[in-house]
Formats: sequence, structure tokens, C-alpha cells
Amino acid sequence: MNKPSAFLSKTEILDAAEQTLRRFGPDKTSVTDVAKLLGVSHGTLYRHFPSKAALREAVTERWLDELILAPLTEIAAAAAGNALEQLRKYIAKLIELKHHYAEQDSEMFKMYASVTEEASELIDTHIQRIISQMGSVIDKGIQEGTITPIAGTETIARSLFYATARFHHPSHAYEWHSGSIGQEFEQLWTILARGLAAVTS
Amino acid sequence: MNKPSAFLSKTEILDAAEQTLRRFGPDKTSVTDVAKLLGVSHGTLYRHFPSKAALREAVTERWLDELILAPLTEIAAAAAGNALEQLRKYIAKLIELKHHYAEQDSEMFKMYASVTEEASELIDTHIQRIISQMGSVIDKGIQEGTITPIAGTETIARSLFYATARFHHPSHAYEWHSGSIGQEFEQLWTILARGLAAVTS
Repeated sequence: MNKPSAFLSKTEILDAAEQTLRRFGPDKTSVTDVAKLLGVSHGTLYRHFPSKAALREAVTERWLDELILAPLTEIAAAAAGNALEQLRKYIAKLIELKHHYAEQDSEMFKMYASVTEEASELIDTHIQRIISQMGSVIDKGIQEGTITPIAGTETIARSLFYATARFHHPSHAYEWHSGSIGQEFEQLWTILARGLAAVTS
Repeated sequence: MNKPSAFLSKTEILDAAEQTLRRFGPDKTSVTDVAKLLGVSHGTLYRHFPSKAALREAVTERWLDELILAPLTEIAAAAAGNALEQLRKYIAKLIELKHHYAEQDSEMFKMYASVTEEASELIDTHIQRIISQMGSVIDKGIQEGTITPIAGTETIARSLFYATARFHHPSHAYEWHSGSIGQEFEQLWTILARGLAAVTS
């Protein structure tokens, strides 16, 4: 009855893993549960996910790539407009997406939050991609003369990412219910934008 | 054998609560344990601490007042020097103290972290005091002409507090082991200081 794993696509495996994690919760899901759902042997699935942690990470990685990074990539790739405004939009979108999923898909969000606190390589890679995308917008701003090269491009991007952590880092989700949170980001952005803007005289 | 509570000072009660919390941990400490240590009745102590949560909050409050706020108050009260530099020192001290206690007194720090996530009034009050102190330094900077009144004083202070949350909010303690964290604060500060500084032409 068991299918050989060669017939399983990565998508099928991740779909089954996500479905199982949603059904039983991250703490109670085992690799065996996912194997059962797919009708493959435990050993077959262990080759894909050597541990429960690997299972959680793989599903979180797909979630981050498809639901967080993909919409951000669109903003970073837009050619038109002022770079500083593009940067604001990029961070505002990151914040909007995090708040949306914290509220609308709290199961996945909690799993992502716990993977984040385990400080996995996967999260480092995800952050690095965001930093690189922000960096390319900053580069454009320096080229067009709207952003001052106050430091290296990556350094500036990283500073902005950290400066806005309260608004997008999952550990702060408990603070996002406050009605003034959107306004607080805009107020902070006013200072950051002024700190980045080239002085036009 | 039991003493009447009138003979107990607030300090004695808090000392006993802190000692008990350190011995048994925040989850296992009960109001009865503290009463036992003090040799008073359970009922007597309940008048001071109606719940375990109240016990944890009272001890956390003293810890925040004496070990975090007191050294910050000194910096805010200093009359000499440039306000922007004083503000940097204030935030750097806040960060230094948090990192120090996360490392050197991890029991108390963990209790403080959990009280923070319960989003208690006590934490709001503590943050409000910090915002007010930062606000008074910003006011001085506006008076002396080194800081631009880009927004209301409290708004600016709150933005700076949030912008640096990654460096002092207890949920980020797991990130503080990174060797580059001090440098990352300084890099962010460069942008913030530029965003706040009055343009001298």
C-alpha cells in the first residue's frame, strides 16, 4: 500500500506536513503522523525530515517564502518612484503581513514564532533576503541622490530592519492589538526617513 | 508565634517574596510560602499580595525601580553636555543594564520577561517613566537648538524607545549573545541621531 517516495513531490510532502501540524499542533505532531497521512513508511519520510524540528522548519520556510517574501519582492522590484518612499512601503508591507497572519492564521504564526526563537539558520537566511532587498532599494536611492550613504548599504538596511523589529518581530505580537500601532510606525518612520534623506540645499 | 503584619515593613515583605521566588521559581512559589518564611499567617500576607501574579509583579516592580530606573534617572538628570549625546548615553545605559541582568541574574530577568508579556500596568508605568525622562532630555535639546521638534517631545521619545526595542526588550534576549550587538546599536543610532539633529547651516 505504501507509495515509494519517488512519487511524492516536495509540495505533496509539505502539504501533508502542514496539514498534520495544523491538526495536531507543533508539539504533538510526529514524523510518523505525516508518513501515515501520505501512506508512506516512516523510514521514507525520515529521509526528508530527520526530526520534528526539521518538519516545523520546512513548513515555516515555505510559509515565509510564499506569504511574506513573495509580496515583498514585488515591492522591492518596482522600478518607479522615490527610493525612500519605496523603502517605507516595503517595511509597511512587512508589518502589515505579519499583523495579518498573527491574527488570521495564528497556528502557523505561533509555529513561525517558536522557530524564530530557536534562532535557526532558516530565519537568518530569511532575514538576509529581506536585508538584501532593502539594500537594493537603498542603493537605488543613493544613485538617484535621495538617500545619503551614511554607512554601507547592508548596514543601513540592517539598522532599519532592527529599528522596526517591534512592529514585525513575532515576539512583539502581543503589542500589535494596540490601536495606535500603525501611527507609531509612521512616527518612527519620520525620524528614520529624515536620518536617511540626502540634505538638499 | 505569628507576628502581626503591622510589624512588617514593605521591604521585609518584598525581601521575603524575592527570596522565595528565587528559591522555588516564579511558577512554584505560592503566597503561603512567603507567609511561612515571614512567620505570618496566610491571611495576613494575602492582604499585601492577593495572588501569585501580584507577588511576582511587586518584586519585579522593585527590581525595575531600583536596578533599571535609578541609574537611568541619574543620566537624565545630568545638566551638562549635548542633549543628543545624553540621549544616546541614556539608551545605551538602558541596553547595558538589560544585557547585564539577563546574563548575571537570569532568574529575576526571566520573571521580569514573563511579567512584560502579560502586558501589565506595571510595565506600562515603567515605560512611561522612561519616556518622560527621555522627553525631558529631548526638551532640553530643543531649547538648546540641537534637536529638531519633528514631533511632540513624548512622541519622539516613544519612537526612540520603540526603535531600540530589539536591544532592550526582554523578548529579544536570545539575540543579545551576538558579538556585534553593541555595534548594531551604534549603527542604528547614527541614523536616529541624524533624524533628530537640527540642521545647522
